Amino acid sequence: MGNSSRFSTILHLCSFLVLLYSLSMLVPILISFIYGENELHAFLITFVVAFSIGFIGWKATDSGDKNLRTRDGFMVAVIFWVSFSIISTLPLYLDRRLGLSMTDALFEGISGITTTGASVLSHIDTLPKSILYYRAQLNFLGGLGIIVLAVAVMPFLGIGGAKLYQSEMPGPMKEEKLTPRLADTARNLWVIYTAMAVLCGLSYYAAGMNWFDALCHSLSTVSLGGFSTHDDSLGYYHSAPIEIVGGVFSILAALNFSLYYIVILNRSFKPIFKNSEVRFFIFVLFIIVSIVCLELYRTGTFDAKDSLVHGFFQAVSIMTDNGLGAGNFPHWPAQVVLLLMGASFFGGCVGSTCGGIKAMRFLLLYRQGSREIDQLIHPNAVYQIKVGGDSVSDRVIQSVWGLFFLFIFFSCAFIWGLVAMGYDLPTAFGTVAACINNMGFGYGETASGFGGLTDPAKWLMCVAMIFGRLEIFPVLIVLSRTYWRF
Amino acid sequence: MGNSSRFSTILHLCSFLVLLYSLSMLVPILISFIYGENELHAFLITFVVAFSIGFIGWKATDSGDKNLRTRDGFMVAVIFWVSFSIISTLPLYLDRRLGLSMTDALFEGISGITTTGASVLSHIDTLPKSILYYRAQLNFLGGLGIIVLAVAVMPFLGIGGAKLYQSEMPGPMKEEKLTPRLADTARNLWVIYTAMAVLCGLSYYAAGMNWFDALCHSLSTVSLGGFSTHDDSLGYYHSAPIEIVGGVFSILAALNFSLYYIVILNRSFKPIFKNSEVRFFIFVLFIIVSIVCLELYRTGTFDAKDSLVHGFFQAVSIMTDNGLGAGNFPHWPAQVVLLLMGASFFGGCVGSTCGGIKAMRFLLLYRQGSREIDQLIHPNAVYQIKVGGDSVSDRVIQSVWGLFFLFIFFSCAFIWGLVAMGYDLPTAFGTVAACINNMGFGYGETASGFGGLTDPAKWLMCVAMIFGRLEIFPVLIVLSRTYWRF
Ligand SMILES: [K+]
Ligand SMILES: [K+]
Repeated sequence: MGNSSRFSTILHLCSFLVLLYSLSMLVPILISFIYGENELHAFLITFVVAFSIGFIGWKATDSGDKNLRTRDGFMVAVIFWVSFSIISTLPLYLDRRLGLSMTDALFEGISGITTTGASVLSHIDTLPKSILYYRAQLNFLGGLGIIVLAVAVMPFLGIGGAKLYQSEMPGPMKEEKLTPRLADTARNLWVIYTAMAVLCGLSYYAAGMNWFDALCHSLSTVSLGGFSTHDDSLGYYHSAPIEIVGGVFSILAALNFSLYYIVILNRSFKPIFKNSEVRFFIFVLFIIVSIVCLELYRTGTFDAKDSLVHGFFQAVSIMTDNGLGAGNFPHWPAQVVLLLMGASFFGGCVGSTCGGIKAMRFLLLYRQGSREIDQLIHPNAVYQIKVGGDSVSDRVIQSVWGLFFLFIFFSCAFIWGLVAMGYDLPTAFGTVAACINNMGFGYGETASGFGGLTDPAKWLMCVAMIFGRLEIFPVLIVLSRTYWRF
Repeated sequence: MGNSSRFSTILHLCSFLVLLYSLSMLVPILISFIYGENELHAFLITFVVAFSIGFIGWKATDSGDKNLRTRDGFMVAVIFWVSFSIISTLPLYLDRRLGLSMTDALFEGISGITTTGASVLSHIDTLPKSILYYRAQLNFLGGLGIIVLAVAVMPFLGIGGAKLYQSEMPGPMKEEKLTPRLADTARNLWVIYTAMAVLCGLSYYAAGMNWFDALCHSLSTVSLGGFSTHDDSLGYYHSAPIEIVGGVFSILAALNFSLYYIVILNRSFKPIFKNSEVRFFIFVLFIIVSIVCLELYRTGTFDAKDSLVHGFFQAVSIMTDNGLGAGNFPHWPAQVVLLLMGASFFGGCVGSTCGGIKAMRFLLLYRQGSREIDQLIHPNAVYQIKVGGDSVSDRVIQSVWGLFFLFIFFSCAFIWGLVAMGYDLPTAFGTVAACINNMGFGYGETASGFGGLTDPAKWLMCVAMIFGRLEIFPVLIVLSRTYWRF
């Protein structure tokens, strides 16, 4: 199959996804009717435009024999996220009540669909319900895309050792068996993801939210997106139960979703408790939460109970790259805020909607660091790095190192870019951590929102959000000479 | 050979080195006589104490059969740097004219012997000549120790892929031939290093320094130590020729010293120009210098000529981790200062006195990053990473990744430690960059000196300097359980 025919197949697939996505615009229209908000044209126009483009693109292109090469997956991932970002931007730009510039709308749209949750909007409490719901839906659908990408697509592309976590998967999730049923896998994940959102929404409602807030926050919590319906995020409620619900569901959403599938298949929770990545994630999370709670108490920021509740919720929310806030987080002691900003690079498990470098990769780097010490002491011994009982191939380890290096390198480059634009180092660090890790909570000048950034800074951070979401490699690959050579 | 007998051999070797080192105290005594400074007791006491300890230790221990195991090298490296740090501290603590606390003296001593060049002293211009000379000599001897360690010891230990750079070495420097002549190698390196210092001193003198300043600055330049005889460092002279001499010799001192040995053996400069690491180092240096000069000019900090001179000198001085200053560097635009602080993690070549992670390792990481992209596009192709024509083994690459990870990890940990002590992020970042990279130039509160740090912060930075100087692994190894298990 030639280049042009393969490209046609890619466009065929992406057009179909755009077509599907256009239907999601109908839900905010419904919300708009329910609340008697008469500004429908933004969503209607977007629906018509996206539906038309998707439909025409779908009809005009050929599915070919549907056998894309592995490397075409990179192109699909990049086109998917860029086109969905642009479509998501449209309603935000068209809605006259928001009065957003093109750049602001794009930032908000990308932030939503990449589940970053960084917002340029202020006075969120006063926004129309349809917009508030739409933002939460952006998070939710973006998260769904990520899970499918991470569980069903990335492993075949091999980015950052993505094949790795499958080594622990029993039967049905093994790579060789997964291939023919991409659609099946996607459907199963979708069901699990939606079920978790329903459970989360009911819990929020039980903890005291009204049904609309519970709906929106459940969508943005299970996607670890972090858009809220209030300027003060979860802090608006001053409610320990709500924060605990938010924290617990952030943790649940940060686990590998294919584990839930296995749990259901096996009717046993053992696969979760026995999973090395989950154990390592919970271990590191426990350490970070403990330090945060202790520091909050030691510095007199809160009393014992509030230190525990706010500390638990906020540490989990930032580390899993959810980014919901409470307890006036930006004013916490600098060392606590910086620790959490740093922890946001850690993220959660592979195969979830969290951002950052992810626990599995740190586990591997940690194992190799220890092995290196043993190896230096006993230079002639042969050490194998094992995860979940299986030894990890050098190929996978080097792939992980490559991703780690690029993540650090681009983080530094983005930070330097912001400093060159005139921002101070804490702001630059916090803003880049918020965007490249799809975490969404800034620091310094962006602590209370990203609207104050200059347009070039916003564009740079849009790039950072997409880089982080796609784990950098797909973007570099699609831009590389090797990719286009034949 | 049992543990205790091997430990005795280690002590025997270290005692002998302490004995030798005690003799170096006689030079500042001589300087003291020349300048009629009557405070000799600090150096005399140190001489007597170190000589006695060294002599007794040497006599009381047994050389054994002199066949230490490879892993004993880690212990030697750690004991060497810790004991030399303590001895170097003594004169600074004992000299009543300085009035330093124990912590300050220790910081200054470690800073000198690790060639960091961070100073707690103020009003340096008014210090006695013997002290000024002594500080420069600390840099010089510390640098000598590092070169011997890096060229003759580290390769056998295999830290951070140290075996790697030998792949490019022709005959006489190959590992297998180097083994039996550690002493020969050390002597040859010592001659080259001293010759470079003489050349550097003459150049400084020709450029307008008085002979004493030329002597001290030549010692601290070829060691990339960075101690100066003036508060304003090289900025004191307001002289372009002096800055150019400083810059050129910083570059020369940042190349692998075994290359000079080969140049002399082969009577040809070709080995230097053909060396992959040198080429990569010069390439990155050129980019950084260009950005710095352009930014200085663009922001109107200096006119064209000064942008070029100050930009060249200061970029080279910081990136090679020399740390001499000029042109009021701390007040340059933040993006320039941060770029250079970042570049100090890059350093120069392996086998020199520079600090940081070093060019060879970044070259390898870069090569692997590119390979990873090719590999992802063509998953079934077999790619080899090559440096200087030879392919690099997976073992070496993983060793380099291990070091990279630990360097980043400990940098973050130290930065967080300073933030937890109440310092702002720019100060914490600049201070850690200055110390862990043995660079010596701080930022924010430490821009004009490290004397203002609290005692705990100074102690933490002492650890950072030693960690950086020993490339972390030896310290972790000596502290690991595996090391002591048998
Ligand atoms: K988020
Ligand atoms: K230095």
